[in-house]
Amino acid sequence: MPDRAATTYPAAAIEAMLAEVRFDPQGLVPAIAQQHDTGEVLMMAWMDRNAVVETMQTGRACYWSRSRKAPWRKGDTSGHIQTVVDFRVDCDGDTVLMLVDQTGVACHTGRHNCFFRAIRGGKLEEIAPVQIDMTKIGRTEY
Amino acid sequence: MPDRAATTYPAAAIEAMLAEVRFDPQGLVPAIAQQHDTGEVLMMAWMDRNAVVETMQTGRACYWSRSRKAPWRKGDTSGHIQTVVDFRVDCDGDTVLMLVDQTGVACHTGRHNCFFRAIRGGKLEEIAPVQIDMTKIGRTEY
Repeated sequence: MPDRAATTYPAAAIEAMLAEVRFDPQGLVPAIAQQHDTGEVLMMAWMDRNAVVETMQTGRACYWSRSRKAPWRKGDTSGHIQTVVDFRVDCDGDTVLMLVDQTGVACHTGRHNCFFRAIRGGKLEEIAPVQIDMTKIGRTEY
Repeated sequence: MPDRAATTYPAAAIEAMLAEVRFDPQGLVPAIAQQHDTGEVLMMAWMDRNAVVETMQTGRACYWSRSRKAPWRKGDTSGHIQTVVDFRVDCDGDTVLMLVDQTGVACHTGRHNCFFRAIRGGKLEEIAPVQIDMTKIGRTEY
């Protein structure tokens, strides 16, 4: 269970947000998920209009999966949901930032966030450990 | 002047990073800039291959401006450069995360970061103040 209650938004607020989001020609906007209390950048994924609406209505992060070409309610398979704390849009409306409370891990590899590859000693290294063996919770799914 | 020395990378490390970055059909990858010590998400912009190389070679964030269709060495006009602390790539290679030390402000509006619009009291509000009057430093430029 998430540690805190989800932030949900009334219809008028969702409309106000949608009016400021500039979706790209594919109808998508990049969405950054950040852990609200630590500042950790967890992942970046994409939202279509419906994903923005569902995320803001339910207080649970929903995306559009470009690989599966389908809505992606994060955590449906893994249980690793993201509870929305705040939903923000940037100056020119082409990126959104969600402060969330991550249940479990954000990354499908079982690491807490997706940005675990960096240069160390001149080579690309994995700088964060696998925290959860995703094969043990069913599928290596998001 | 930035508070800390830039992280720069040798050619082999840049090649190793480039081998993992999946540029989109336009040859671009989203790049998130995060203040290294506070965790503040400053902005999201786009890099082409040359921008990745220049950023990693020089230790200063460079992007591709989609609006101007040109390389964008952030801070050339404003002086608000981003000194690279760490350059990371995500699990599937389609987003990069830079930990940086921001000089001045990241946002062209004069706010410290670009994500200053959120719902408060059911309405879209500006939740961060303008810190620098960008018209006084020449242009309202990045």
